[in-house]
Amino acid sequence: MQQSKNIAIVGSGLVGSLLAVYLRKAGHQVTIFDRRPDVRKVEFSGRSINLAMSNRGWSALRRIGLEDEIRKLALPLDKRAMHVNEKPLYFQKYGKEGEAIYSISRGILNRKMIDLAEEAGAVFKFEEKVWDIDLKQATIYTGDSETTPWTEYKFDLIFGADGAFSRVRHKMQRQSRFNYSQHFIDVAYKELTIPANPDGSHKLDNASFHIWPRGKFMLIAMPNLDGSFTCTLFMPFEGEVSFESIDTEAKAEAFFEKYFPDIKEDIANLKKDFFKNPTSAMVTIKCFPWRYDDKVALIGDSAHAIVPFYGQGMNAGFEDISVLFDKMETHGDDWDKIFSEYQIARKPNGDAIAELSYRNFIEMSSKTANPMFLLQKKIEKKFAENHPEAWVPLYSRVTFSDHSYAEALKIGDKQERIMAEVLQMPDIESNWDSPEVEERILELLGEKVTV
Amino acid sequence: MQQSKNIAIVGSGLVGSLLAVYLRKAGHQVTIFDRRPDVRKVEFSGRSINLAMSNRGWSALRRIGLEDEIRKLALPLDKRAMHVNEKPLYFQKYGKEGEAIYSISRGILNRKMIDLAEEAGAVFKFEEKVWDIDLKQATIYTGDSETTPWTEYKFDLIFGADGAFSRVRHKMQRQSRFNYSQHFIDVAYKELTIPANPDGSHKLDNASFHIWPRGKFMLIAMPNLDGSFTCTLFMPFEGEVSFESIDTEAKAEAFFEKYFPDIKEDIANLKKDFFKNPTSAMVTIKCFPWRYDDKVALIGDSAHAIVPFYGQGMNAGFEDISVLFDKMETHGDDWDKIFSEYQIARKPNGDAIAELSYRNFIEMSSKTANPMFLLQKKIEKKFAENHPEAWVPLYSRVTFSDHSYAEALKIGDKQERIMAEVLQMPDIESNWDSPEVEERILELLGEKVTV
Repeated sequence: MQQSKNIAIVGSGLVGSLLAVYLRKAGHQVTIFDRRPDVRKVEFSGRSINLAMSNRGWSALRRIGLEDEIRKLALPLDKRAMHVNEKPLYFQKYGKEGEAIYSISRGILNRKMIDLAEEAGAVFKFEEKVWDIDLKQATIYTGDSETTPWTEYKFDLIFGADGAFSRVRHKMQRQSRFNYSQHFIDVAYKELTIPANPDGSHKLDNASFHIWPRGKFMLIAMPNLDGSFTCTLFMPFEGEVSFESIDTEAKAEAFFEKYFPDIKEDIANLKKDFFKNPTSAMVTIKCFPWRYDDKVALIGDSAHAIVPFYGQGMNAGFEDISVLFDKMETHGDDWDKIFSEYQIARKPNGDAIAELSYRNFIEMSSKTANPMFLLQKKIEKKFAENHPEAWVPLYSRVTFSDHSYAEALKIGDKQERIMAEVLQMPDIESNWDSPEVEERILELLGEKVTV
Repeated sequence: MQQSKNIAIVGSGLVGSLLAVYLRKAGHQVTIFDRRPDVRKVEFSGRSINLAMSNRGWSALRRIGLEDEIRKLALPLDKRAMHVNEKPLYFQKYGKEGEAIYSISRGILNRKMIDLAEEAGAVFKFEEKVWDIDLKQATIYTGDSETTPWTEYKFDLIFGADGAFSRVRHKMQRQSRFNYSQHFIDVAYKELTIPANPDGSHKLDNASFHIWPRGKFMLIAMPNLDGSFTCTLFMPFEGEVSFESIDTEAKAEAFFEKYFPDIKEDIANLKKDFFKNPTSAMVTIKCFPWRYDDKVALIGDSAHAIVPFYGQGMNAGFEDISVLFDKMETHGDDWDKIFSEYQIARKPNGDAIAELSYRNFIEMSSKTANPMFLLQKKIEKKFAENHPEAWVPLYSRVTFSDHSYAEALKIGDKQERIMAEVLQMPDIESNWDSPEVEERILELLGEKVTV
């Protein structure tokens, strides 16, 4: 058991509130600051992408006894539903029998997590903005504005769980030798909704992650418990087909009619949301170190914000907490060592999931409709079924395993090199399921190399 | 002629003060803010590396009529003096006859530039720290601290010439879609001095840039007008031989004796400086955009801080000013267009000189003593002498030409690929000046490709 500390968490999002539960159960005092109002008392922002909880997220919840409670908020999706223009709808299974990702509304989960953290004894201070932090003293200064008098709070430890635009990291960034990058992609997103049928049922299959890949842009839809779908339109900020170019109701209507004919009955609603909801940017953030001495540590998006295209943002943040807890169990009250080993363990994995997420952005928007890409997936799938030990697909390794993101990236790269050679085989389009292809893959994998 | 604007420059360094002269001569009102005291009234910081003014710097000074004045502060260096252990001192010419870089003390130049800007009518506000900037309104807020009342200044335009840790950029960085990175290298530097002889003469050749390459660390020395040399010791922060490990006078003495035997008579002085002067970090900073609407623009290190190993930091900043001025001449009062074209013209060059400077860090510390590297330089030199049109050495293109950094990087990469092949030729060590080698290079350059 650790000595009880007085700990601040900045940020009452998913990672902040789950971390609060973990720290409370470990016997610490926990105060959570958030500049925003209590999400339980306000309408949702209209800028959320539904969450895809998968293995890493569930593991972290299970360890602290919250899995069952959260399962009730989630719908399992075991496949992609591909809405490719001029083709009938088709499905791609995500993994093996029984494997699924889970669609959860961010807002609903966040409300529940705050309830759970409060029940565990954490104290929330909403609408209290952190303006400055004395890293060495673990002291937080909050106030109404930059120039009005501030309130000072002294803690033993501070966690920055305050997301991509973290104030805690911002303070650390002004130090010498703090490496940092923020890179925005040229694509934005917007939340849209497909409402439930009048009887409360879903208008589309509710066990699928729906994708309308359209090259430079893409629509996705994930089901909610109430029969609605939360959709996300990903599209460039500027250019021919872009958020900037669609600036009238007529253009929005024409856009939805042209590109999404199979959901045209919902256009009125999509169009309303299109002009009501904000257009949001997406950023990859990398930094190092993730801690200041034994006083302050970053966790979740504040340490490694990623683009959302692998559905791993929250899962990676929850896994951070689980790894931090491993280090707490091993090193007791030596917070210097806990933070040091935590950041060394997690930094390569943060970098790896950032890279994988960025690549999936390319893959989901353009490649999912590409015949050679689909052929590759077909070959991989068959080979993986016949040789499940030798070939775990990258998506499965990231989504359904506990193996590290860094390892997944490395093995995924090797698999890509192998498949690039296989796709060069003569008449691969017709011979793709021949024994020669299978043998060639085994040969490329090497006798003793398990990837 | 442009309409006269009321312009603020944040930062009274070299770029800020030269920009002030340019803007004054173009008829604008100019106020320069600096949080530091007037450098003309205080001792130097002891953290400077001497400047190596070269073609781009001189061009920008010449254009505004300041070249002759500044030449008086500079000493031409036409070669490297290589102090390689267990070898006699030897020299490497930088370029062709008459080509040289110019050693100038940063502090002395900065004092002079501020005098010149003041003479041109710029108003300096020293010890006035900018705490906040309203980008849209081009308004600056200064004050004693973050919480005391601030003074508000409204301008038409603001330039951030406030260096690597720019407050202006810091404000821009908090915007969405602002790409930014800061990357520190693990090597630090420290200013040291070799004093003049009693008669005021230099102790080492004063027309050379002196280098003691020692693998993981390196000492350099550049002459001053007063007979002294400003030296810079580049060395890792931590590790076996590092600033951290040399923590006693005895260790410092042993270090200088072991690695720099040819300057041992100056060890007492080097040792004194070693403990007196700060150990400083080096950072590469990249960002984009470099401007906010037609209101605010970054210039010099604030837009593209680089490591100092190509001696181009100030030269690149001065070239920024010259390019900005081109755009002012072309686009008159259309500051939106001026800023837009300025950043588009300069961003790729900022990135290129960052890359070249980082590579030179590797080259200067480790490769300058490597036999194959020296052989490569020998072959290149001979070929360039015989074919001056076909082969401008990378260093010359960066240092002695007006061609863009981006072009220099691209052509330099091609030259590297060619030389990698040439060094593979049989018995190249003995045949390096044979006609076969010359022919092979010509062949690799391609019949019509001039690099």
